[in-house]
Amino acid sequence: MSTATVKTLDAIARIRQEVCTLHAELTRYGLVVWTAGNVSARVPGRDLMVIKPSGVSYDDLTPEQMVVTDLYGVAVDGDADGEWGNPPLSPSSDTAAHAYVYRHMPDVGGVVHTHSTYATAWAARGESIPCVLTMMGDEFGGSIPVGPFALIGDDSIGQGIVETLKNSTSPAVLMQNHGPFTIGKDARAAVKAAVMCEEVARTVHISRQLGEPLPIDPAQIDSLYDRYQNVYGR
Amino acid sequence: MSTATVKTLDAIARIRQEVCTLHAELTRYGLVVWTAGNVSARVPGRDLMVIKPSGVSYDDLTPEQMVVTDLYGVAVDGDADGEWGNPPLSPSSDTAAHAYVYRHMPDVGGVVHTHSTYATAWAARGESIPCVLTMMGDEFGGSIPVGPFALIGDDSIGQGIVETLKNSTSPAVLMQNHGPFTIGKDARAAVKAAVMCEEVARTVHISRQLGEPLPIDPAQIDSLYDRYQNVYGR
Amino acid sequence: MSTATVKTLDAIARIRQEVCTLHAELTRYGLVVWTAGNVSARVPGRDLMVIKPSGVSYDDLTPEQMVVTDLYGVAVDGDADGEWGNPPLSPSSDTAAHAYVYRHMPDVGGVVHTHSTYATAWAARGESIPCVLTMMGDEFGGSIPVGPFALIGDDSIGQGIVETLKNSTSPAVLMQNHGPFTIGKDARAAVKAAVMCEEVARTVHISRQLGEPLPIDPAQIDSLYDRYQNVYGR
Amino acid sequence: MSTATVKTLDAIARIRQEVCTLHAELTRYGLVVWTAGNVSARVPGRDLMVIKPSGVSYDDLTPEQMVVTDLYGVAVDGDADGEWGNPPLSPSSDTAAHAYVYRHMPDVGGVVHTHSTYATAWAARGESIPCVLTMMGDEFGGSIPVGPFALIGDDSIGQGIVETLKNSTSPAVLMQNHGPFTIGKDARAAVKAAVMCEEVARTVHISRQLGEPLPIDPAQIDSLYDRYQNVYGR
Repeated sequence: MSTATVKTLDAIARIRQEVCTLHAELTRYGLVVWTAGNVSARVPGRDLMVIKPSGVSYDDLTPEQMVVTDLYGVAVDGDADGEWGNPPLSPSSDTAAHAYVYRHMPDVGGVVHTHSTYATAWAARGESIPCVLTMMGDEFGGSIPVGPFALIGDDSIGQGIVETLKNSTSPAVLMQNHGPFTIGKDARAAVKAAVMCEEVARTVHISRQLGEPLPIDPAQIDSLYDRYQNVYGR
Repeated sequence: MSTATVKTLDAIARIRQEVCTLHAELTRYGLVVWTAGNVSARVPGRDLMVIKPSGVSYDDLTPEQMVVTDLYGVAVDGDADGEWGNPPLSPSSDTAAHAYVYRHMPDVGGVVHTHSTYATAWAARGESIPCVLTMMGDEFGGSIPVGPFALIGDDSIGQGIVETLKNSTSPAVLMQNHGPFTIGKDARAAVKAAVMCEEVARTVHISRQLGEPLPIDPAQIDSLYDRYQNVYGR
Repeated sequence: MSTATVKTLDAIARIRQEVCTLHAELTRYGLVVWTAGNVSARVPGRDLMVIKPSGVSYDDLTPEQMVVTDLYGVAVDGDADGEWGNPPLSPSSDTAAHAYVYRHMPDVGGVVHTHSTYATAWAARGESIPCVLTMMGDEFGGSIPVGPFALIGDDSIGQGIVETLKNSTSPAVLMQNHGPFTIGKDARAAVKAAVMCEEVARTVHISRQLGEPLPIDPAQIDSLYDRYQNVYGR
Repeated sequence: MSTATVKTLDAIARIRQEVCTLHAELTRYGLVVWTAGNVSARVPGRDLMVIKPSGVSYDDLTPEQMVVTDLYGVAVDGDADGEWGNPPLSPSSDTAAHAYVYRHMPDVGGVVHTHSTYATAWAARGESIPCVLTMMGDEFGGSIPVGPFALIGDDSIGQGIVETLKNSTSPAVLMQNHGPFTIGKDARAAVKAAVMCEEVARTVHISRQLGEPLPIDPAQIDSLYDRYQNVYGR
């Protein structure tokens, strides 16, 4: 095997392990029930991604079950750089949306989708989450925006995610009546964004139940965001 | 032993194992406290069902404790096809309702009953859960309906379940002032319906706390349901 | 040692084990944080009780740490029937309230106190929980009543518990601004009542957040209670 | 090594162990997600403190990773009393606030910061938590106050904490739009205050959702607090 071949196969094995393991963070933080949430990662430097198989319980996931697809969501077992194999399983039914994001946002290395309760509750009202917490300034740099209502089956969901996020500092979008999608430089960052999205969705919801949260000055939000992303390191 | 005998006994042993194990999903997702929830399964091709014993803690359940009854809820230790034995325990106090469902809905292979918090909260108001989430379109094909108030002790609960569900796409019914019952092609599908019923009951409740969720067009709900049940496979 | 001695010592050892173990149900169901909740049991036929020591974390509890006291809450290391020893720990700061209940309600074999969230939220408003759930009819036979505001330090809390419960079917009382106390024929029954009290406090609270739960006819509540206590066996 | 050297090194090793272990209480009680919360302790008799490193997951924390800093938050590997070493990790990004508290409140031996949901929800509205629960009288001796809005990066947060707490019986302050900080005579007491702060924030919030909690007479709050702090022992 050539060096390039070995490097690609090693990268895919490593990413399968990482994507598999990260699903445990979705269950740990209560973001998903049954099989309704998924993590994917881009294979760096290749037009490939790795994603959860459809319909497999989180407890039963193994690295070998993670499906390798091209950036149109088609499962691919290998190429000129070698054979990595694929399980006899379909990729997640949300694969097309993940793939669309990787095709149109080249800096994105990881995507996560959940139906986490509080974020989905905001999404059902089509309401963005206002930035009234310093931790929200740190992580999101402003409000968490709402994306359009879109049906599964074509590129509508992917388009809605990309159009909403491309001009936002937020790594999370609440797809209307559906739930959150989050992005990150890698899969771990996208999982962190999913965890923090639910955390702020819950905290701001609960705060608003008994009155109106105090606004934070936009200049102070910018200051928090700049510091967290640059000084603190994200 | 004849082949038929072996086949029946093997099926009952397998179903006892499955019904026992599935109760762990009720505790995992917080659908039950103490002993207040139960799973049953039909024995395929036989007028028999398998159900949780009454009053046993979920931690202590073993497959051998699962009670085999006829479809009137009477414990039966064996028949012409062999002796499968039964524990010295009564079947769940909800057995009559499960049995009624199996007698009147021949396609149903599994039934689950819980008092899960949010679903029961809707049931206490006698209010159906509107379909305002795409995952609800997928799983329920519309709103989750309310069944009548009915006392335990005769067939009232079973009748209420069957009359409510027979003309609905929903596999879940909220029995008024009582709690949800769910059905499925097998026990695992009924447990999934119980988990998803609480999930959407909670999410729609929380969404409505701060305003009105946006409706989804009925044609789009149909489209979601058809795709999920047929294309995606349920 | 005489037979009576052995019997008393065996009973105390068994009850210490049971009381210790039952505290795990308080943490399992999220009824307590830190060290703020306690279980006790009467020693049958003796003027003695067994209760959690003060200030010990639930993880660290051992049977030997459970404190034996008389029915005035004074730790007692032994008597004419033998020496059972006591740990170098004080009994729970709520011991006087438990002891008062045992002195004045001879059928009570177990007492539990928690600050479980939803029950305490009703208690802070001084509001009883209306019986709008069939499971509440089963377990409580009506609403869960409120007891008076009372300070720790004398018999006020115990008196408030006894006066509220002696004419009620409910095994739970919500002490105003304080939290629930529950009773049972033994410690396990009192723990079950504490678990069910929080369960119905939470479910009725959530139901009322979006409207008014439908009432259940008092005759039907009586019917549910009679059946559950007598036919089903409690 | 001199006796003083050994004593300092032993104390630092013991405190690193304690601070590391106490983080597990933050996750146990759901006060933190991802890496967003931290515990510190003063090294008794020294101008030193021990704090969580920045960006390390709670599961991965080891005692050796706890960072020793001076009371200006600068990591220090050793001094005339010996070399205790430090990991190649930065101290928590909240270190400056902890350090300010130790410099200005000599009786404080432990500090905790979280973004626990309900406490942060009150903080986002800039609203103090009224003392309407006996357990709140015990632990806080009155309401839990709000501190000013302050940005990270200088001493503003530390000043806000100290100015709010120095004249209060409460060991917890809700920093506006940010979250709670708690103090204690040692790190364990500060963790207990963080746990109880979220507990009362949640219970009072839920109580207020359906009406107004009944007030407790200030003299009775004083009585509860005095008894708990003095008689019961804190």
